[in-house]
Amino acid sequence: MSAYVPGEQPQDGGWVKLNTNENPYPPSPAVVRAVREALGDDGSSLRLYPSPDSSPLRAAAAEAHAFPSSRVVAGNGSDDLLNLLIRAYAGPGRPVGMLDPSYSLYPVLAAAQDAPVVRVPIGPDFRLDAAAVAASGAALFFLTNPNAPLGAGFPAAEIASLASRFPGLLVVDEAYAAFAEEDCIALAKEMPNVVVTRTLSKGHALAGLRAGYALCPAEVADVLHRVRDSYNLDRLAQAAAAAALRDAGWLAHNVGLIKRTRTRMLHELTAMGWRCVTPCGNFVLTEPASARRAASRETSAHAFEHLRSRRILVRRFPGHPLTEKGLRVSVGTDAEADAFLAAAREWTALD
Amino acid sequence: MSAYVPGEQPQDGGWVKLNTNENPYPPSPAVVRAVREALGDDGSSLRLYPSPDSSPLRAAAAEAHAFPSSRVVAGNGSDDLLNLLIRAYAGPGRPVGMLDPSYSLYPVLAAAQDAPVVRVPIGPDFRLDAAAVAASGAALFFLTNPNAPLGAGFPAAEIASLASRFPGLLVVDEAYAAFAEEDCIALAKEMPNVVVTRTLSKGHALAGLRAGYALCPAEVADVLHRVRDSYNLDRLAQAAAAAALRDAGWLAHNVGLIKRTRTRMLHELTAMGWRCVTPCGNFVLTEPASARRAASRETSAHAFEHLRSRRILVRRFPGHPLTEKGLRVSVGTDAEADAFLAAAREWTALD
Repeated sequence: MSAYVPGEQPQDGGWVKLNTNENPYPPSPAVVRAVREALGDDGSSLRLYPSPDSSPLRAAAAEAHAFPSSRVVAGNGSDDLLNLLIRAYAGPGRPVGMLDPSYSLYPVLAAAQDAPVVRVPIGPDFRLDAAAVAASGAALFFLTNPNAPLGAGFPAAEIASLASRFPGLLVVDEAYAAFAEEDCIALAKEMPNVVVTRTLSKGHALAGLRAGYALCPAEVADVLHRVRDSYNLDRLAQAAAAAALRDAGWLAHNVGLIKRTRTRMLHELTAMGWRCVTPCGNFVLTEPASARRAASRETSAHAFEHLRSRRILVRRFPGHPLTEKGLRVSVGTDAEADAFLAAAREWTALD
Repeated sequence: MSAYVPGEQPQDGGWVKLNTNENPYPPSPAVVRAVREALGDDGSSLRLYPSPDSSPLRAAAAEAHAFPSSRVVAGNGSDDLLNLLIRAYAGPGRPVGMLDPSYSLYPVLAAAQDAPVVRVPIGPDFRLDAAAVAASGAALFFLTNPNAPLGAGFPAAEIASLASRFPGLLVVDEAYAAFAEEDCIALAKEMPNVVVTRTLSKGHALAGLRAGYALCPAEVADVLHRVRDSYNLDRLAQAAAAAALRDAGWLAHNVGLIKRTRTRMLHELTAMGWRCVTPCGNFVLTEPASARRAASRETSAHAFEHLRSRRILVRRFPGHPLTEKGLRVSVGTDAEADAFLAAAREWTALD
C-alpha cells in the first residue's frame, strides 16, 4: 500500500511557496481572538476534553450554509471525512469512484479499506462525463468540484441531474468551492444520496488547523458520527473554525482578493502563450510554452526547474495526460504572483 | 455497529467532574506560551499546512523518552494511533486481543475493520494472565497498563516476559503511565513486536488538544506513517504537545500532586469501608458499601445517584463483574477530592 504524497513543505524560508494551494493571507482576526479566548490566561480549558461532536463548529457551519446542524459532521480536516466515508460505505465489492484526474488521496484511502477504485476520465474539454459516473457502479463517488488538480468547475445543474440518476452516494468534494461560482449545498439539503465536504484549509486560510465538515443526509450523518473518533477535533480547532465560519465578511473579502489575482495571472499567462485551464479554485493549471519549447512533459519539468532556481515552488502532476504538460500554481499575494510571473516571463524568453 | 460512548460532558457549570479522568490542573505554562507563539499576532502561520509528520512533537517525545525519533509516530490523540494500528494489523482472520475489562473503544475500532475480538479476562486478583495473552491468537493485543477502568498496574517484568512469547504485536496502551511506577518504554526500544502508545490527555493535562504518540519498532512506524492521515495533527497541537513534553519538571510536580491526593482518597475510602483497587492511574475504582448496603451493582447505582444529587459526577461501569460494584472516581484537586469524600461519607452514614 502506498502513502499519499503531499506537496513539498520546505522548512527554510525564502521561498515563494505556490505549491500546496495555501491561502496567502492570514485568517480572519476573529480566529486569533477565538483561539486566545479558548486558551485563556493559563490554558486551563485544555485540560478538559473538547465537545465530542464539535457542536460549536457544527452550529457555525449550519448557520453559514442554512443547513440543519444535525446533518453537519465535523472532521479533522476534510481528509478525515473522506476517510470516514470510505470506511463506512466502501470495501471489497463496494467500489470507490473518482474522476481521473482528481485528488490522489482517494485511492490511498480506498486501498486501506480493500475497496476497488473506478476511475471516470475527464475529457480533454474538461467536461464531466455524467453518464459514465452514473453507470460507474461505485458505492460512493467522489466528485471533486472544482476539480483539483485541473481547477475546472462543473455546473451545479449537471451534478443535480447526475445525483438523481446515480444509485450510490455522491460525495461532492468542495475543498475549493469558496473560489467557485456555484456549489452543491442546496443539492445536499434535498437529496438523500448527496454529501458535500468542505475544508477550512483553503478559503478560510486555516490549513494549519485541520478542520473540515460534511453536509449530509440524516442517515449518513448518523453513520459518520458512529465511525468517527469520539473526539476528532480539539478545542482550539473547534473554536477557530467556528469563528472563521461566522466571519462571512472576511471570507468574501479574501476570496475577492484571490480571484482578482487569479484573473490577472490567467490573463498574463495566456498572453505569454501558456495555455490555462479556466480556474475555479485558488490555483491555475498552466502549460509552459515558448518559441523554443512546445508544451510537453519535458517542457513542464524544464520550467519547473527554472522557477525552482528562482526559489519559486509550484507543483507538477506528471502522472496524467491532462496535467503532465502543466504546472499547478497556487494563487498567492500580488507580490508572489508578480514574482512567479516575472520568472515565468524570464523562462519564456530563454533561447 | 455501535459507537464508543465517552463519559458525560455536562456543559453547564457547578459540577465536581470526576468522571472522565481529566487532569485537575492547568497544563504547563510552556504550553500556553507555545500556542501563543505559534499563533503569532495575526495567526498567519495557520494558513500554512503543519509539519506532515509532526516533527516538533516527535523530536520532543524522542528526547523525553531517549527513544529514536524515527520510531515515534504522532496521532490526533492516542485513539488515532489505536485506530491506525487496528487498520494496519487487524481484519477478518486477524483478531484484536484485549484484556477484559479494558478500554471499550478497542472493540468499536475492531468492528469497523471487521476484525474478531479475543478477550482475556482479568482475574478477581487483578493479575495479568500472561499465558492466556500469549496463547490468544490475536494479531495484535492491547495491553492497557495501568488498566482502565480498574486502575491496576501490571509489572513491567511480566510484560517483558510475555512479549518474548507472544507471536503478534503487543501494544502496551500507556495512557495512564505517567501516574504509575513502571512503564514499558525500554521494552519498546528493544523488542521488534512491542509498541507503546501514549497520550498527552492525562499526565500533561491536554485532553482538550488531542495529541498522542506511539513508540514503535522501525517497521511498525513505517506502516503507521503510510496509513495515517498525511496531516493528522494541527500546528497548535504540535507546538503545545512539544512544549508539554519538554517540561519534565512540570510533569513531575503535577504527577506528585495527583499521587498525593490519590493516596489520601485511597486511605479515606478504605477507612470508610469502600474497597479500592490499588490505583496506578489518575483515578480510583472503589466499591461503595455501608452498614446498611453491601457492595453490589445496586449499591453502586445508589451511591452514584447520591453523589450526582450533590453535583459530583463519577463514572459507573455496570457491564463487567469486576467493575459493576464500583465507581470510577478521577483524582481531582484536593478541594474536589474533599467534596467527593464528604458526599461519600454522607452516603455511608445514610440509614
